[in-house]
Amino acid sequence: HNSTFMNGTGNLMDFLDEPFPDVGTYEDFHTIDWLREKSRDTDRHRKITTKSKESYWELIKSLLDAWSGWVVMLLIGMLTGTLAGVIDLAVDWMTDLKEGVCLSAFYYSHEQCCWTSNETTFDDRDKCPQWQKWAELMTGHSEGAGAYVLNYFLYVLWALLFSFLAVSLVRVFAPYACGSGIPEIKTILSGFIIRGYLGKWTLLIKTVTLVLAVSSGLSLGKEGPLVHVACCCGNLFCSLFSKYSKNEGKRREVLSAAAAAGVSVAFGAPIGGVLFSLEEVSYYFPLKTLWRSFFAALVAAFTLRAINPFGNSRLVLFYVEYHTPWYMAELVPFILLGVFGGLWGTLFIRGNIAWCRRRKTTLLGKYPVLEVIVITGITAVLAFPNPYTRRSTSELISELFNDCGALESSQLCDYVNNPNMSRPVDDIPDRPAGPGVYTALWQLALALIFKIVITIFTFGMKIPSGLFIPSMAVGAIAGRIVGIAVEQMAYHHHDWIIFKNWCRPGADCVTPGLYAMVGAAACLGGVTRMTVSLVVIMFELTGGLEYIVPLMAAAVTSKWVADAFGKEGIYESHIQLNGYPYLDVRDEFTHRTLATDVMRPRRSEPPLAVLTQDSTTVEDVETLIKDTDYNGFPVVVSRESERLIGFVQRRELTVAIKTARQKQDGVVSSSVVYFTEDNPQVAEACDPQPLKLRRILNLSPFTVTDHTPMETVVDIFRKLGLRQCLVTRSG
Amino acid sequence: HNSTFMNGTGNLMDFLDEPFPDVGTYEDFHTIDWLREKSRDTDRHRKITTKSKESYWELIKSLLDAWSGWVVMLLIGMLTGTLAGVIDLAVDWMTDLKEGVCLSAFYYSHEQCCWTSNETTFDDRDKCPQWQKWAELMTGHSEGAGAYVLNYFLYVLWALLFSFLAVSLVRVFAPYACGSGIPEIKTILSGFIIRGYLGKWTLLIKTVTLVLAVSSGLSLGKEGPLVHVACCCGNLFCSLFSKYSKNEGKRREVLSAAAAAGVSVAFGAPIGGVLFSLEEVSYYFPLKTLWRSFFAALVAAFTLRAINPFGNSRLVLFYVEYHTPWYMAELVPFILLGVFGGLWGTLFIRGNIAWCRRRKTTLLGKYPVLEVIVITGITAVLAFPNPYTRRSTSELISELFNDCGALESSQLCDYVNNPNMSRPVDDIPDRPAGPGVYTALWQLALALIFKIVITIFTFGMKIPSGLFIPSMAVGAIAGRIVGIAVEQMAYHHHDWIIFKNWCRPGADCVTPGLYAMVGAAACLGGVTRMTVSLVVIMFELTGGLEYIVPLMAAAVTSKWVADAFGKEGIYESHIQLNGYPYLDVRDEFTHRTLATDVMRPRRSEPPLAVLTQDSTTVEDVETLIKDTDYNGFPVVVSRESERLIGFVQRRELTVAIKTARQKQDGVVSSSVVYFTEDNPQVAEACDPQPLKLRRILNLSPFTVTDHTPMETVVDIFRKLGLRQCLVTRSG
Repeated sequence: HNSTFMNGTGNLMDFLDEPFPDVGTYEDFHTIDWLREKSRDTDRHRKITTKSKESYWELIKSLLDAWSGWVVMLLIGMLTGTLAGVIDLAVDWMTDLKEGVCLSAFYYSHEQCCWTSNETTFDDRDKCPQWQKWAELMTGHSEGAGAYVLNYFLYVLWALLFSFLAVSLVRVFAPYACGSGIPEIKTILSGFIIRGYLGKWTLLIKTVTLVLAVSSGLSLGKEGPLVHVACCCGNLFCSLFSKYSKNEGKRREVLSAAAAAGVSVAFGAPIGGVLFSLEEVSYYFPLKTLWRSFFAALVAAFTLRAINPFGNSRLVLFYVEYHTPWYMAELVPFILLGVFGGLWGTLFIRGNIAWCRRRKTTLLGKYPVLEVIVITGITAVLAFPNPYTRRSTSELISELFNDCGALESSQLCDYVNNPNMSRPVDDIPDRPAGPGVYTALWQLALALIFKIVITIFTFGMKIPSGLFIPSMAVGAIAGRIVGIAVEQMAYHHHDWIIFKNWCRPGADCVTPGLYAMVGAAACLGGVTRMTVSLVVIMFELTGGLEYIVPLMAAAVTSKWVADAFGKEGIYESHIQLNGYPYLDVRDEFTHRTLATDVMRPRRSEPPLAVLTQDSTTVEDVETLIKDTDYNGFPVVVSRESERLIGFVQRRELTVAIKTARQKQDGVVSSSVVYFTEDNPQVAEACDPQPLKLRRILNLSPFTVTDHTPMETVVDIFRKLGLRQCLVTRSG
Repeated sequence: HNSTFMNGTGNLMDFLDEPFPDVGTYEDFHTIDWLREKSRDTDRHRKITTKSKESYWELIKSLLDAWSGWVVMLLIGMLTGTLAGVIDLAVDWMTDLKEGVCLSAFYYSHEQCCWTSNETTFDDRDKCPQWQKWAELMTGHSEGAGAYVLNYFLYVLWALLFSFLAVSLVRVFAPYACGSGIPEIKTILSGFIIRGYLGKWTLLIKTVTLVLAVSSGLSLGKEGPLVHVACCCGNLFCSLFSKYSKNEGKRREVLSAAAAAGVSVAFGAPIGGVLFSLEEVSYYFPLKTLWRSFFAALVAAFTLRAINPFGNSRLVLFYVEYHTPWYMAELVPFILLGVFGGLWGTLFIRGNIAWCRRRKTTLLGKYPVLEVIVITGITAVLAFPNPYTRRSTSELISELFNDCGALESSQLCDYVNNPNMSRPVDDIPDRPAGPGVYTALWQLALALIFKIVITIFTFGMKIPSGLFIPSMAVGAIAGRIVGIAVEQMAYHHHDWIIFKNWCRPGADCVTPGLYAMVGAAACLGGVTRMTVSLVVIMFELTGGLEYIVPLMAAAVTSKWVADAFGKEGIYESHIQLNGYPYLDVRDEFTHRTLATDVMRPRRSEPPLAVLTQDSTTVEDVETLIKDTDYNGFPVVVSRESERLIGFVQRRELTVAIKTARQKQDGVVSSSVVYFTEDNPQVAEACDPQPLKLRRILNLSPFTVTDHTPMETVVDIFRKLGLRQCLVTRSG
């Protein structure tokens, strides 16, 4: 080979025809270049199209390639749906395990246990003989102070065991499995690389610890983490196809769709899931991804339905059906609930961020296991005495959403019935509240305060934790209280002018369950600042267009109120807290600055580190790489005329020089590095062999002039997903 | 003022501080610059924010400004909903007017007329005495050949009258009111200016002629034109707020939302409307627009419901409820319907485009009124004898979608009943078809052929015409036929292996109405290439998640099949046919070219027309403007060193020179035009006064290097909405 290099400049650098092994990949904690990824995918696609005309085999391969996107979606949907079903079943069983055990089969949850029993009347269903509380099983007594204390003790013990297991597993095996994951997924989808965040271990450990964390009775939900689990599934299946595994841009399209599938199974709302991915999580969401997300969300929802974890062949977590319409005057309490939701959102975000900052900066952060244990202990000890906090949060929400039918046995439905009245089940008029309702109101008020305080401290601990369910619980409790208040007011004062028009005596005019649902939407909206996807998720829960207006009113009010105190939702706040490089689409850039005011280096700093096209030596380049930590360098015509030729990445420059030094004879420290198109003239034989690096030169770097307003620059960065942008003046 | 200009260069050009009256507006049939519009809006917003701190009055004004977006949405929603309601009522009445008249009140439609009658049984509803056909009214005979011929004749006459009125009104008052309007709206939303297309006259005339065209019985629908009507409403309300009327970018955000409101009232599907706007129509759709579109769509839907044109307090056009689930094996006919839909889409697009091209190039286009009259005549003459084409197309679709209940009296439900069977109404087993069904099948087959042929010639005539309803009708007919075939096959051969598992005798296993719905979705998908929004619209019609999978399977199959024959949907094809400048987001740029291969001027052409920063005279500029028709000129350092300084728009250059010549002393033909920052040195007193034009110079023109791949350039154009892009090499 020696002669090739010596006898001139013909194919001097042919060894560079083969791409370096690492070119086109990114280092951990770096940002990807969307434009380049897209361009690489177009190249790949073009190659396959050209090849497909050559033979049948290539044609089949190209068709398989075109279909691989749908196959990935199918796989993601199926795995996500299955995992969600398994999680639901496991959580059900383990939550009930804290209270007792099923004698007929220990792996049955309370509900499953009593299904198989022979008691079929509604009231007895909860008290079937096969299900025994721990105290009953161990001492034979189911009543009395002793049994209560024993049950209490075991409840707390189980909770501590579950949460200890969860936090230990996370710490030992997959530190990335903690939290809700949505802030990180937003950052990853915007083009950041966090290796291992969506890995197989994270998937496995997050699934297991999510079950443990939810079962431990902590004030957290499984919805956010399910999105993370779905994205891990997406990443897993990406690795099967080189189209996705080798292109970070395409991979992110799959992940966006996976996020939709995650929400789809979390709430049983496929359309809501797609809109959630579009509105809340995704960064780059082309139409193709919209279709595929929808497909993945549907497959996931149907897989979950086939598993049927709730045993009611419903897709949705909280299925509700209301029998009465709402009235215009009710918009006032709905909007008040929206205000409450906005205030709760502000309080939660401020409190939680302050606490998380404290965790980051003080000794607290050093003992995550202890923190989890202490919070679990407090939660369990305070939760047990109150029936509304003892049960799982999703059951609580479900009960609060429900309309009081004739057969309802819950304390919340303890109304004074009119004995000589025979009405159809669906149309029960407003009745005065009985003592049970008043007890329930007190307990709910206490539960509300407890939930508000404990959730602030729970979210962000080192275990998987979502905040959809706790937020919804806070809103549902507040909503139900308001709903009962309005209902009783309307019953006792139906001669008041506001009630006169829509609430005659004997009519069913107020549905407290609807207030609970509106409150839940408002609180969730206040915390996350979702609007459309939130309303659509709620719409898919009820299936009725009628209640969209109340939901919309509450969601929009809550967003406005919360935005008045601070523009950022909880996810953006956590992104900021963790210092992830995330360029929010919603931020508005209000300063009137130009690119020249913002660009580096500033006037006081040393001049820009550049390479020249034909006068830098290998040694100069190596010194430059050693002395600076820039990710790339502009290449200019010469030091005198600094006109831009192109841009070279630090990573590729390092690899190229290293490879050339090893493989190419004659390249020494004093070799001149050429970026020009023409072959360099080797003037004398004694001159060292030049190194030609035009191959790694990006000839189309993105430039703006120094007079470009910064809002335009930010817009360009957002829309094109740039990694860097060069500022020029007259070239 | 003379002294100011003579004594130096201090504030030479102060008169240019005031913007020219026309700066920032665009000429008709030009493309807007999204980046500039966005930057102008940011400026405006910044000014208002600064001012709002000065006084309470300004603060209130700034709050009003912030809320104006929601106010516009509210107004659009209300007007769109009202217009849709009025159109529905008028169409109902006028369609029935072709057959007869209500004696109790001439402005009642057939259905309304019989509501008020005393006959309450289901069968007699259609035959109430107050409603009289024309023959009955005029001759007293309702039966016999004479009455039939008279009815036939009057039916055709009314149809000809309506369509003649429609086409004349369109031709005389608002030529833009013809067609569906969606291709033009897509183009406008992508940044093109067509003045008057969304004007008040167009709104008025389109609303009136839409009623006439639909009532005339032509094979067209009101859904596409309703989107146009909604966009006209949007444009109308934009003019109330300078925020929207003076910024073409912001105006387009409002129009996107208006399009969503249009679809929302067309189908009673608010979520589907938003997704339609997002998937099919819009170009730039930020999150803010998503929320506002949703709001507008909801308001529109509720206004329509308040008007209640269908008299069933349902929002939706075709409300259906099915009682049986679908089975896996049915996916085969569903996918076959998808294939049919794709083939229909291809046939329709090719046929319609060929016919429209013919209309454009031959004598045919000269006689639009005659064309409409002839097509109406043919349609009416052929449609009357067949009961399935005689009625309005939406009634036909509605009947085809319906499941045959026990009370159904239609010919399509003429099954042989098992007499000794008493089952609940909802659960009727599969039965053998009676003679009525076989007659219906023949009539439907004829109607199918008729609709397929006539729709190709109808769409694109000079009257308002949408193709959603005709496409859905074609699909619904085909689907119903397939559905009945499968049903009868399953009944007569339930021992076949494919039926054995899911269709025991006496079970209700096949719902022909569902097949009709799947077929409608497939055909609509084949023509428009919608997927997600289509499925969501259909989902909102049925309200059940269960049927999403069949719909999705058919929609995706239809899209794939149609895409195999040509990537473009009907709207894109019409955009191309009319030569609108539309850059499709979905097109993939597959050629491997660089910016240098595509840029103008090419090598063989005369060199680039540029201005220099300090050596061009006023006369040179005027010559350049006269000799060329470019929309703008790059400004370079000098002829020798053509380094780019900025870009100047032709329009602004013309205005600036004209203004200077009129208002500024000393500016003559030999004055030098300066674009530099420093004030020009007036060397000698005898030199003519220089003209400084830096104010109109765009200092941040968008540039790419000559080596940039074209797919990147196209991507940049799409995402940033550029008007032009300069190609540079080393500046």
